[in-house]
Amino acid sequence: MFDLRKYKVKKIIIASTSTVHGTGYLEYILPELKSFFNKVKTILFIPYARPSGISYDTYTEKARVAFGKINIQVKGIHEFDNPEEAVLKAEAIFTGGGNTFELVNQLYKNDVITSLKVVVESGTPYLGTSAGSNICGVNMMNTNDMPIVYPPSFDTMGLIPFNINAHYLDPDPTSKHMGETRETRIKEFHVFNKVPVLGLREGSWLEVSNNDIKLKGELSARLFRKNKEAVELDAETIITQEILA
Amino acid sequence: MFDLRKYKVKKIIIASTSTVHGTGYLEYILPELKSFFNKVKTILFIPYARPSGISYDTYTEKARVAFGKINIQVKGIHEFDNPEEAVLKAEAIFTGGGNTFELVNQLYKNDVITSLKVVVESGTPYLGTSAGSNICGVNMMNTNDMPIVYPPSFDTMGLIPFNINAHYLDPDPTSKHMGETRETRIKEFHVFNKVPVLGLREGSWLEVSNNDIKLKGELSARLFRKNKEAVELDAETIITQEILA
Repeated sequence: MFDLRKYKVKKIIIASTSTVHGTGYLEYILPELKSFFNKVKTILFIPYARPSGISYDTYTEKARVAFGKINIQVKGIHEFDNPEEAVLKAEAIFTGGGNTFELVNQLYKNDVITSLKVVVESGTPYLGTSAGSNICGVNMMNTNDMPIVYPPSFDTMGLIPFNINAHYLDPDPTSKHMGETRETRIKEFHVFNKVPVLGLREGSWLEVSNNDIKLKGELSARLFRKNKEAVELDAETIITQEILA
Repeated sequence: MFDLRKYKVKKIIIASTSTVHGTGYLEYILPELKSFFNKVKTILFIPYARPSGISYDTYTEKARVAFGKINIQVKGIHEFDNPEEAVLKAEAIFTGGGNTFELVNQLYKNDVITSLKVVVESGTPYLGTSAGSNICGVNMMNTNDMPIVYPPSFDTMGLIPFNINAHYLDPDPTSKHMGETRETRIKEFHVFNKVPVLGLREGSWLEVSNNDIKLKGELSARLFRKNKEAVELDAETIITQEILA
């Protein structure tokens, strides 16, 4: 049933956020999506992350309106009898943001996480925003989300050899709040784990073209590695194994 | 080996934070702790949450210095050959903050979570701050922490019939950040769960005396229940079943 596309180029956009302040849903990245999806007529939407707990239908409608502006039809994965078949046959796939724990939970529950990895690695164009980007990493251990459900595993697709911290926030030097900063949380992660973590600020995204991973948007991103000082990567940096080492 | 104390009064302090801005470790709550632990000479410290990834020894030393000021000796649970025996024999127990996922992971790994629940319910005085407070709830699903390790379960002690959101933060109306507010995250929790959640601001704590649960400190706390508007509870409120219903 799966049209083997292994000779095609891997094409992925991994965005920190769906929305930047003061603009509409996907608006800031729509010109990029128009060119990225230029050969695509239909997209499969995965609404499992349910931001603010909205229904799959409501969330899919939101994606449908945004993609309608670039003449791409959207169908929600929940509209298919067989979600795995929907993934295998999809022309392109978009996983929206929301709660990463619930997203990963449903990807396992509906038995689509492996198929998703396989088709994206074989060339099905993929867009992730926020939670949908977190699942492109090795595991979901750098999500900012609340653990509102217990997924069977934290392992995700590993489409890139590092993890994403979406909506990356710099410490606020004027804050009187004693909760951990994002940087402290990621440093705690590296006490127990070796996987590098990229803090992607809102408005930034990664464009993966085969094995090239490029930082896009206007902002720098912050790279955290175990036992090393965090470093800033400029926009347009190609994230190589040497940079991650 | 366990000195059965079931006729004693349950005594628990559940604090949002160990430290309020501009003061030393436990300083704001030390007068309260002096009276709460007035019959106690030694306290067992559980350093499993490892804030910023510090070692058990370093963390225990921090607790030792603070409790030294009120003439209470501190011993870390990791200094004992048998952690379960240490819990069962402890005169009083303090679990410090840090990463809730790692704390819960170690409580299961060291097989002490059940014993901890049993002794506290039987009268061993217990202090929790931050992550150490989250584990007093039904489960750890309202932690703000990053899932840096995968614990065998999210279930915790259930010493109180609701969950804690420590370091509760009100939405910042001036923020341009698109990540979810704390309130949105807790509302997402209630799409999937029924357990009430109490947002405890820094400087607030709960004092549990048998089955009375009283909000202490100067601030109000924010109570979230499934399918209801969130409400503010004033300081000194006794949190009854009616309030939680």
